[in-house]
Amino acid sequence: MKIAWAQLNFHIGNFDANANKIIEQIQLAKSSSADLIVFPELSLCGYPPLDFLESNHFIEECIKSIALIAIHCDGIAAIIGAPAINKNETGKRLYNAAYFIENKRVAKIIKKTLLPNYDVFDEYRYFEPNNIFEIIEFKGHKIALTICEDLWDEQDETFTPLNHAKMYTISPMQELMKLHPDCIINIAASPFSFIQNQTRIKVLQRNAVKYNLPLLYVNHCGAQTELVFDGGSTLINKNGKVIAAAPFFKEDFKIVDLFDNSIDAFSAPINPSKNELIYNALICGIRDYFEKQNFTKAILGLSGGIDSALTLALAADALGKDNVMAVLLPSGFSSNHSINDAIALVNNLGCKHQILPIEDNFQSVLNTLAPSFEGTNFGLAEENIQARLRGVLLMAMSNKFGYILLNTSNKSEMAVGYGTLYGDMCGGLAVIGDVYKTEVYQLCQYINKDKEIIPLNTITKAPSAELRPNQKDSDSLPEYDILDKVLFQYIENKQSVEEICALGYDQSLVKRIINLVNKNEYKRKQAAPVIRVSPKAFGMGRRMPIVANYTC
Amino acid sequence: MKIAWAQLNFHIGNFDANANKIIEQIQLAKSSSADLIVFPELSLCGYPPLDFLESNHFIEECIKSIALIAIHCDGIAAIIGAPAINKNETGKRLYNAAYFIENKRVAKIIKKTLLPNYDVFDEYRYFEPNNIFEIIEFKGHKIALTICEDLWDEQDETFTPLNHAKMYTISPMQELMKLHPDCIINIAASPFSFIQNQTRIKVLQRNAVKYNLPLLYVNHCGAQTELVFDGGSTLINKNGKVIAAAPFFKEDFKIVDLFDNSIDAFSAPINPSKNELIYNALICGIRDYFEKQNFTKAILGLSGGIDSALTLALAADALGKDNVMAVLLPSGFSSNHSINDAIALVNNLGCKHQILPIEDNFQSVLNTLAPSFEGTNFGLAEENIQARLRGVLLMAMSNKFGYILLNTSNKSEMAVGYGTLYGDMCGGLAVIGDVYKTEVYQLCQYINKDKEIIPLNTITKAPSAELRPNQKDSDSLPEYDILDKVLFQYIENKQSVEEICALGYDQSLVKRIINLVNKNEYKRKQAAPVIRVSPKAFGMGRRMPIVANYTC
Repeated sequence: MKIAWAQLNFHIGNFDANANKIIEQIQLAKSSSADLIVFPELSLCGYPPLDFLESNHFIEECIKSIALIAIHCDGIAAIIGAPAINKNETGKRLYNAAYFIENKRVAKIIKKTLLPNYDVFDEYRYFEPNNIFEIIEFKGHKIALTICEDLWDEQDETFTPLNHAKMYTISPMQELMKLHPDCIINIAASPFSFIQNQTRIKVLQRNAVKYNLPLLYVNHCGAQTELVFDGGSTLINKNGKVIAAAPFFKEDFKIVDLFDNSIDAFSAPINPSKNELIYNALICGIRDYFEKQNFTKAILGLSGGIDSALTLALAADALGKDNVMAVLLPSGFSSNHSINDAIALVNNLGCKHQILPIEDNFQSVLNTLAPSFEGTNFGLAEENIQARLRGVLLMAMSNKFGYILLNTSNKSEMAVGYGTLYGDMCGGLAVIGDVYKTEVYQLCQYINKDKEIIPLNTITKAPSAELRPNQKDSDSLPEYDILDKVLFQYIENKQSVEEICALGYDQSLVKRIINLVNKNEYKRKQAAPVIRVSPKAFGMGRRMPIVANYTC
Repeated sequence: MKIAWAQLNFHIGNFDANANKIIEQIQLAKSSSADLIVFPELSLCGYPPLDFLESNHFIEECIKSIALIAIHCDGIAAIIGAPAINKNETGKRLYNAAYFIENKRVAKIIKKTLLPNYDVFDEYRYFEPNNIFEIIEFKGHKIALTICEDLWDEQDETFTPLNHAKMYTISPMQELMKLHPDCIINIAASPFSFIQNQTRIKVLQRNAVKYNLPLLYVNHCGAQTELVFDGGSTLINKNGKVIAAAPFFKEDFKIVDLFDNSIDAFSAPINPSKNELIYNALICGIRDYFEKQNFTKAILGLSGGIDSALTLALAADALGKDNVMAVLLPSGFSSNHSINDAIALVNNLGCKHQILPIEDNFQSVLNTLAPSFEGTNFGLAEENIQARLRGVLLMAMSNKFGYILLNTSNKSEMAVGYGTLYGDMCGGLAVIGDVYKTEVYQLCQYINKDKEIIPLNTITKAPSAELRPNQKDSDSLPEYDILDKVLFQYIENKQSVEEICALGYDQSLVKRIINLVNKNEYKRKQAAPVIRVSPKAFGMGRRMPIVANYTC
């Protein structure tokens, strides 16, 4: 049986575009004599559709599109992820479903059993879990058709954020095995993190081996604001060997045979490095944010520091150097190297730049405030005015010329609130908001692997916000290599002060850091959406009260 | 049996304060010879604790506090809401539980069965649903102890956002009836909306009558950033009559007797008007945002328009007139009446004010941008610069003197994006962000019911942003009475273009409005948290993709 996988990049709610893309791939599969073509989970509407699922019209559009697509399924069958209506009298209105289309009609609707509802997932918000198990019979084969999380029933301490033995009380595959399937197909909407692919392959291999069945996995690619889908669609044989694998972050169409036992060797794809994965995820995140909104041009404030340098290099790669405008916004506290390093980077990349000095604006604002501020010392207020005036100028350029402002905050500073709300926290997309400062350095080294693109001085000099004379980040913050390790234990590993101190960190330092993280929830509430590359990013996957009083 | 209810205002994660408050009320109940005292759902940790529930330390603190409280339960029993650990090998790690404490020890832990996971609720994210039903036996009585949603199994079209016959497939009370209880106790964390109390009373009455049992309902009061809890704890007899009711938005301790059948009449509390309810909810929302973070002083930009006028009047009532600073930030486009109306309001309220003209700063910024903007016309960019400079000045005052900036955006403008990101969208709390413009007028009339506090001219003049000469809101937006009705159909009722047009609205107008709502999701992502007063507020209860392409 020849099966085509269609690892595609869908646009949430864009039914015309999504249905057309699906129909095109069906035509391609037919012309390649495939028996069956498989599309990812909720591909028809894009993932995650969020509260659009509560609109009747949205669901009607899904059902209309399925009917439209079915017409093209002659001489080929298709599996397409889309919501389905729960026709029972009780339960949530929808299922997260896989439509099996054969002979131009929907032959069967398979429903998702395990609904992830942690981190970035909210599937119980919309869907009723399945509890009736059925097999797809097709061309003499019996397919165990599962949807993403359905194969993750064994989630254990390693994978679950809740540290519990097993999160789920039911195993869809164990139920399906009673019906004697001869293969497993899993359609997925499984977002990227830099450890996700390794975890995923292990889970898929465990299922193939445990049930002694070949397994075809088809995932989305492309970015949906915060979430990046890396694809990585895979065919695994019943011995757990990877027989075929799609590239990461790219659309891919491939025809495979689940039952060709002659293939038992596969030159496995080179496992990309963490830096390569993150780099490509960020490129994908930027590009799709722009393309899917019909934006072309980006702008950002280039300080000469490493965060804005990395963001500019990524933007230039994602959007093309001619579509990126770097703006230098020096104040009286900016050092010469800041300007020189920024110009050097712009020259290395071939981007456009402008210089908009903020000193006059800063003095003008201080004049207005002089009666109110009389008798006070230069301090945080004055520092923040500078950062906010940069925001005013960048947003003015954005409004005037249609540039989208990219935010350049890194994860470390977002964590501890080392940034000015409505100042350097401005922007439509926080490109590196899920990249710790120490990882920012690593990514810059990765970019410089063949030649110096990010100026060496930008990498080697001490980080500074340059909002007062001779300021250094280390005046206010611990050294980043310590800060980032403590943040990782708290944010990713959800460790308490006591547990982190047991790793050898100073208690007052750990408490100070965790208090900063908790107290700055109010800033992150108003931050730009962050491209998620780690297993625990700020944004939809981490939900904390703003008004609270708790230190773990 | 004498039962005390303790309708209290808890602080999320503040275990010392919460446990002390609980112990105080237990002492009070003991001194009043109560047999049992009842505290609300998850009262020990505050509601909603969100992802703090994923921290082991947080759960340990809950368990430690329960042990501490239990010591005080001699001669009295207590029911306290707190998370409990799931000791089974499978399922989510926690239950949302009610601890029944008797003779200084936890005698029973009752677990929540129906876990709301819609609108502002995410309970499946943390909790495993209960499926074992038990009765509390106490002093010869059999108590059906339920937790909030457990009584909402009959949610039908009227209540459910999903428009489905019944959202839940199980009825906890039907299960509990098999054990022959003689009363129902329901502990809740049921947030306010201006229709919630009426809905709630109906649900409680339906349960009392259906099962022919007296019902005691105990809810939180107080605000938790976006969510306001109105209390409204109630005793209902088996005939469905309200026998006792706690006040709204206030802490309350009362001793009631579920089994005193002599009482069958109750002078029902005056059902507050919608405006009174919303007014009090907003006061509660502001006050607790400040008190729970140890803030005392607020600042806001006072334009002379109705939104900032209403926000100032609310803030002055919530925080005290001496704790509120109004800042007038006139530009060259500000009309005389703007200043006069603002001053009149400040005088009526007795607040402090300052005037910080932005004209010089505006010209200074335009000078900086002159080379870049050369040859372009005055437009949106120039309008937004003014709004953003006001943000710069207000935040500078905030940073310098510790004022918290209140945001004055209303729901109508947040819906269609008629506001400047990082400009008039600045602020720590969006006080009236869930109040449509037409409701803003109603609230001002309510405030003015006895004497003119909001100047009449502020109420009667045409709304204007005053960012260009002779600008009126109606230049860019439909009249608010039409806009608000269309928005309500789309946002609250989730109607499609077609359905809204069927109510008599022009199709191109409806499409334009809905497109504005969808396209401005990116602005709302970065908006201040909104105090929720309606059944569907912007914020945690409405989750929409930013990058999407869909018009219903």
